[in-house]
Amino acid sequence: CVVEGNGFRVGSLAKGAAMLAPNMATMLAVLTTDASAEPALLHDALRRAVDGSFNAMTVDGCTSTNDTVLVLASGRSGVTPSGHELAEALGEACTQLAGMMAADAEGATKVMHVIVRGAHSDAEAHVAARKVADSLLVKCSLNGEDPYWGRVVSELGSAGVAFDLDRVQVSYGGVTVCDKGVALPHDAKAVSAHMAQKHVEITCELGLGTGAGAVLGTDLGHGYIDENRTTS
Amino acid sequence: CVVEGNGFRVGSLAKGAAMLAPNMATMLAVLTTDASAEPALLHDALRRAVDGSFNAMTVDGCTSTNDTVLVLASGRSGVTPSGHELAEALGEACTQLAGMMAADAEGATKVMHVIVRGAHSDAEAHVAARKVADSLLVKCSLNGEDPYWGRVVSELGSAGVAFDLDRVQVSYGGVTVCDKGVALPHDAKAVSAHMAQKHVEITCELGLGTGAGAVLGTDLGHGYIDENRTTS
Repeated sequence: CVVEGNGFRVGSLAKGAAMLAPNMATMLAVLTTDASAEPALLHDALRRAVDGSFNAMTVDGCTSTNDTVLVLASGRSGVTPSGHELAEALGEACTQLAGMMAADAEGATKVMHVIVRGAHSDAEAHVAARKVADSLLVKCSLNGEDPYWGRVVSELGSAGVAFDLDRVQVSYGGVTVCDKGVALPHDAKAVSAHMAQKHVEITCELGLGTGAGAVLGTDLGHGYIDENRTTS
Repeated sequence: CVVEGNGFRVGSLAKGAAMLAPNMATMLAVLTTDASAEPALLHDALRRAVDGSFNAMTVDGCTSTNDTVLVLASGRSGVTPSGHELAEALGEACTQLAGMMAADAEGATKVMHVIVRGAHSDAEAHVAARKVADSLLVKCSLNGEDPYWGRVVSELGSAGVAFDLDRVQVSYGGVTVCDKGVALPHDAKAVSAHMAQKHVEITCELGLGTGAGAVLGTDLGHGYIDENRTTS
């Protein structure tokens, strides 16, 4: 995919299958840009881009030994973007690639966007979102299109971050199904329709602070097992 | 099951299905003993017994909100065991129950005994063993009876504990398949025969110290998904 920057462009391509919880996973991504940039600036911009994209996704929680992201800058545009502009454009490219990888992951039928807000810090929000996205029970419920908010709350509560059950809110596709830790009457048909889609959004409001974070995950179905029962 | 202590007995019963990574999981266990013991001593002995049994097993890494282990002492035997004797007997009872729960876990077809030795500390050995037992790829390979030692090594290496690839040894049922981080010629038929059994033993020697730990896990197959796709 191609991202347009301020006078420069970023191209990107990647391959990834499973063993995806990048940090990085059996994943190979190459970004190219016609921007002019010093290696140190490019490195810093790439690191920031990767944190919010590849390092914020998980297919099976299994980190690979062979992840690589490269960025190559030709300088052909004659434009020398600021570090911020560069990080923005690279981040956009990485986010698009991460989304494509999750959608195309081994045996996955759905992609979940787990968003945690109201945490004590961004770091805690990320930890909590990852705990939800890595949960086998949440992943199975996504496969079954079942809005299993009780399990989402359990994962938030056992994620090791600041948590108060009486303040938790959970929404599927913007429809709040749990408020203050208990079931909230809601439009069940709207939730079902949302969960039937390929992309499902689970938003968790912790009600404690301003920390926010998001992690991309996938469902767990027979396909993943069939592809990973044997290596041969 | 009943465990015979030194002049006293321990009886036990438990229920558990999945959501098992006790600390504790949707699990209810009751131990009874005819020993005579002060509550504080009993509490301490139970805590030690639980650490090496229920808290050293994982079915799906999903901690439940409702785990309970109780011990009731009647004193009818007239015997007042030492704290050590009591912890031993309770530990044996808890270990037997944990094994039965794993074998009977939702959708599980196999039980894996992951043993890590040669770690810097017992705590690091436990963390590493849990990382292996919780790995979706290891769990799938167990379901497929595939001795996927490369993934076992990857999990050990990403567990966040002291690790040196050049010293790692991995064995299935006592047959070493990986030595110093690389494949070792071995009796493949013996490994296949071991993996075809219900109980599979994966032993990892880190070669760094004297720390040891063990975690009980299960395979991941279609059954687990089918039981957890929907809550209804």
